[in-house]
Amino acid sequence: MAKIPKVVSGFPEWLPEARRIEQQWLDTARQIFESYGYASINPSSVEEVSVITAKGEDVDKEIYGLKRLKADDDDKKGSRLALHFDLTVPMTRYVAQNYNNLTFPFKRYQIQRAWRGERPQEGRYREFTQADIDVIDNESISLHFDAEMVRLVHKILSAIGLDEVRTHVNNRKILQGYYEGLEITDPMKAISIVDKLDKIGDEGVSKLLQSDLGLSPELAQRCLDLAKIKTFDSSFVEQVRALGVTNPLLEQGLEELKYVMDSASDVPTGAVCADLSIARGLDYYTGTVYEGKLAEYPGFPTVFAGGRYEDLVGMFLKKKLPGVGISIGFTRIFGKMLKEGRLALAEKSPTNVLVIYDADADMAKLSAKAEVLRDRGINVEVFHDSAVKTAKQIRYADRKGIPYIMFAGETDEVKNIQTGEQVAMDINSWEPAEVGYQTRIVPSSKRSVNPL
Amino acid sequence: MAKIPKVVSGFPEWLPEARRIEQQWLDTARQIFESYGYASINPSSVEEVSVITAKGEDVDKEIYGLKRLKADDDDKKGSRLALHFDLTVPMTRYVAQNYNNLTFPFKRYQIQRAWRGERPQEGRYREFTQADIDVIDNESISLHFDAEMVRLVHKILSAIGLDEVRTHVNNRKILQGYYEGLEITDPMKAISIVDKLDKIGDEGVSKLLQSDLGLSPELAQRCLDLAKIKTFDSSFVEQVRALGVTNPLLEQGLEELKYVMDSASDVPTGAVCADLSIARGLDYYTGTVYEGKLAEYPGFPTVFAGGRYEDLVGMFLKKKLPGVGISIGFTRIFGKMLKEGRLALAEKSPTNVLVIYDADADMAKLSAKAEVLRDRGINVEVFHDSAVKTAKQIRYADRKGIPYIMFAGETDEVKNIQTGEQVAMDINSWEPAEVGYQTRIVPSSKRSVNPL
Repeated sequence: MAKIPKVVSGFPEWLPEARRIEQQWLDTARQIFESYGYASINPSSVEEVSVITAKGEDVDKEIYGLKRLKADDDDKKGSRLALHFDLTVPMTRYVAQNYNNLTFPFKRYQIQRAWRGERPQEGRYREFTQADIDVIDNESISLHFDAEMVRLVHKILSAIGLDEVRTHVNNRKILQGYYEGLEITDPMKAISIVDKLDKIGDEGVSKLLQSDLGLSPELAQRCLDLAKIKTFDSSFVEQVRALGVTNPLLEQGLEELKYVMDSASDVPTGAVCADLSIARGLDYYTGTVYEGKLAEYPGFPTVFAGGRYEDLVGMFLKKKLPGVGISIGFTRIFGKMLKEGRLALAEKSPTNVLVIYDADADMAKLSAKAEVLRDRGINVEVFHDSAVKTAKQIRYADRKGIPYIMFAGETDEVKNIQTGEQVAMDINSWEPAEVGYQTRIVPSSKRSVNPL
Repeated sequence: MAKIPKVVSGFPEWLPEARRIEQQWLDTARQIFESYGYASINPSSVEEVSVITAKGEDVDKEIYGLKRLKADDDDKKGSRLALHFDLTVPMTRYVAQNYNNLTFPFKRYQIQRAWRGERPQEGRYREFTQADIDVIDNESISLHFDAEMVRLVHKILSAIGLDEVRTHVNNRKILQGYYEGLEITDPMKAISIVDKLDKIGDEGVSKLLQSDLGLSPELAQRCLDLAKIKTFDSSFVEQVRALGVTNPLLEQGLEELKYVMDSASDVPTGAVCADLSIARGLDYYTGTVYEGKLAEYPGFPTVFAGGRYEDLVGMFLKKKLPGVGISIGFTRIFGKMLKEGRLALAEKSPTNVLVIYDADADMAKLSAKAEVLRDRGINVEVFHDSAVKTAKQIRYADRKGIPYIMFAGETDEVKNIQTGEQVAMDINSWEPAEVGYQTRIVPSSKRSVNPL
């Protein structure tokens, strides 16, 4: 090949020192999901096209279909296959298929890649890793889980050091009820127009409400009045009531959102916002909706999103199985933090200790000592070539970010490369100062130059 | 939809109670890889077709190409894309692309899915998870790593309870040197014929050697004599020498294989076999070759495989970057053990404790107590609905395999559902008898009926 090939545009990859942080993030998500009783499932990356387009949205232009490069007649008979573009559709198919083997409420998480054939741009990838949690139950689902989502996501993002994420919560019943109370004939259409507020501003939304729905300027303004309400506690209820619209669905939505906000009252103030402008574009949400934003980067796309839905599984199974869930866009967040120099990059290697291999040493003995340390949870390499001078072996450790070197012999000694301190060690009890991951997002004020 | 959709044939999925074991296996592999200093990389699932077919083998009939369902003119201009069919090609492309940012010897692992459009059959899937390790170095690579692979794989498979795997090791230099010593004109062709020994037997191989290579029956027999040598230590060296063929490449191969076998001398006898019939079909191996077999299931395909290669990265970068590595077929092993009823299936939920939610309880207080336990590493659910009777809440715990229920109050109590024992608990110090995974492969004599 004339040119060195590169990974395809829109398919992000990281060097080992960044990958280790990504793994730490995903481990944190997994550990916290499990601490709340969510079980892992790992559905296929591939579905039949008829399944993947069953939600009926205009998503198929972004879906990657699959075809064997040397397709033969057999392929023509078979089903058309495609890569999943999110983790929700495979989950609903999985629940429908395995309904009789699952216990409800079914709490599951999925940490997987998904694919969309979009034009790559900041925050948009063609291949990306998402972490999804959903609860699915029979007939009805407790609001308890709507509240749990908020707490869970906050806990995960705080744990990886991302304190600046704000969760915006709303309830579609508030929007629909309010618009119904205003006697707007197509409340769903009104929801989809007000959802554009971020992009086209007050005036743009007002114009569309007038042109597309035939509202008077005054009525359009009343729609905007609702969308302006943002509170960090339950005081939104009074502000909505002050707008003077009454409707039973509106009341129900206010109560539900109040429950969610009250349940999150011990989450630090400012982290969760009742934001009545949030609608989420997707048709299938019916109650609580969530959106996560990076407060430091206002123009950056949503970093997590979700909500409550009444009938997603119903596409595939004639049962009422409502659910509520959130999807965290880990690749999107990770790519942004890496680009902004906000990641304290880890070492290039997971090794804690490099055992020096002297010309007169016995590899079998060195390996046996290394094994003792490994079985104690310490990551150890024995240098592979006794012909290499000790200084060069130490340089190898230094370049890989390995913090300790060990000189094995009658008595064993260990040296901290950073401090130069060298002490006798007992391989049965010695502990490195730090084992494992120790990486965090740095505050934006202390960002480093991104070396990648 | 009239029918409940199913996952596509050849794309395996597990119920949560099996998925937990799969996660445990992959965690074990990861932990042991890292304990030997291997760093994770996670290359894209997608490559340009020109990259993925660069190895020049006849693999493209199994490759899944990608095409957006609503492809437009833009797509025609772009590159043709495909899903990777193994983890080796993406690794070599990654090393070539990032050469200047990596430190050599570069030790990496990858635990990822790969895809092949094959007809599904036992042990063959269209989507499967592999765990690969490779070491790549500049110019030459230490035999130390050839030996390390054997130890690593044995350690991982033992740790997950799979003691019955046997590692068969050989060295292509032995085969090539021996055939050269016999003055066979096309040693590579001879290797590829003898590689069929498992499938077509002695007579079949002998016939092919005569018909395709023009060997005399006596010479064909001498090829078979080599392939018959199998030892659990270094005694194969004497057995080969007794065949009376001398050749410098043969000598080098014998020395290398002896080094690998001697290094594995502390691995239990029988687990590693110098097996001179092993060739591995792939053209690119140049020295050590490995194959892992399930001793209990002789007809079942290889469960791991690998070897040493001189120039894989050289496809993409004009440098000599030899490597050695092994790929473990986790989905293949997992699917077989599940089918044979050899998995002690885990609970349906990772939850350790279910907090009972009484009608007069305060959810905020229950949640706070649950949070104390979670922060101590215990997985806790608070039941979501106080209107559900306690007996039914307990039944929910039992059905999900949650071992403990907690009654929170002025004093807290915890009950072991299995034993019925109920005791006072201090949430700041109480520990469940077992936290986390405790699943193993059961011996084949004790296999259970497979419930999946």
